[in-house]
Amino acid sequence: MKAIVHVTLKPGVLDPQGKAIGHALDTLGFSGVGEVRQGKVIEIDLDEADAGKAQATVKSMCEKLLANTVIENYAIRIEA
Amino acid sequence: MKAIVHVTLKPGVLDPQGKAIGHALDTLGFSGVGEVRQGKVIEIDLDEADAGKAQATVKSMCEKLLANTVIENYAIRIEA
Repeated sequence: MKAIVHVTLKPGVLDPQGKAIGHALDTLGFSGVGEVRQGKVIEIDLDEADAGKAQATVKSMCEKLLANTVIENYAIRIEA
Repeated sequence: MKAIVHVTLKPGVLDPQGKAIGHALDTLGFSGVGEVRQGKVIEIDLDEADAGKAQATVKSMCEKLLANTVIENYAIRIEA
């Protein structure tokens, strides 16, 4: 199975990378650009046939390593 | 509209960040972890009502700024 994890900053947490992208888009002449936020996407190949177990494992990975849950949210998608 | 852009390294391009995550997961005792790849996700608020136009604008943003198309792929999702 393949797990796709999205790690994004919680709303309200300052995102300098996103701000930099927004400014750069402005400089390049793109108008009508509002807020820009940047996060991470992590794709993990798992040797696990059961989707429920895979979800639980990846949740534990997120809590322990992949996300800083003080300032970041995570979302997990399991693909066959 | 909101655009969600995924920027990932092309297959075959070395991904040291992904490798580091894989090793760390191993060290933490997670078994059965295969390849790990890390990419970016960029969320852009757009002042544009037409989904087709939004898609075209964001494609141009990707080509010009968001992705290094020599080594990275990008995927765009437009949400209402």
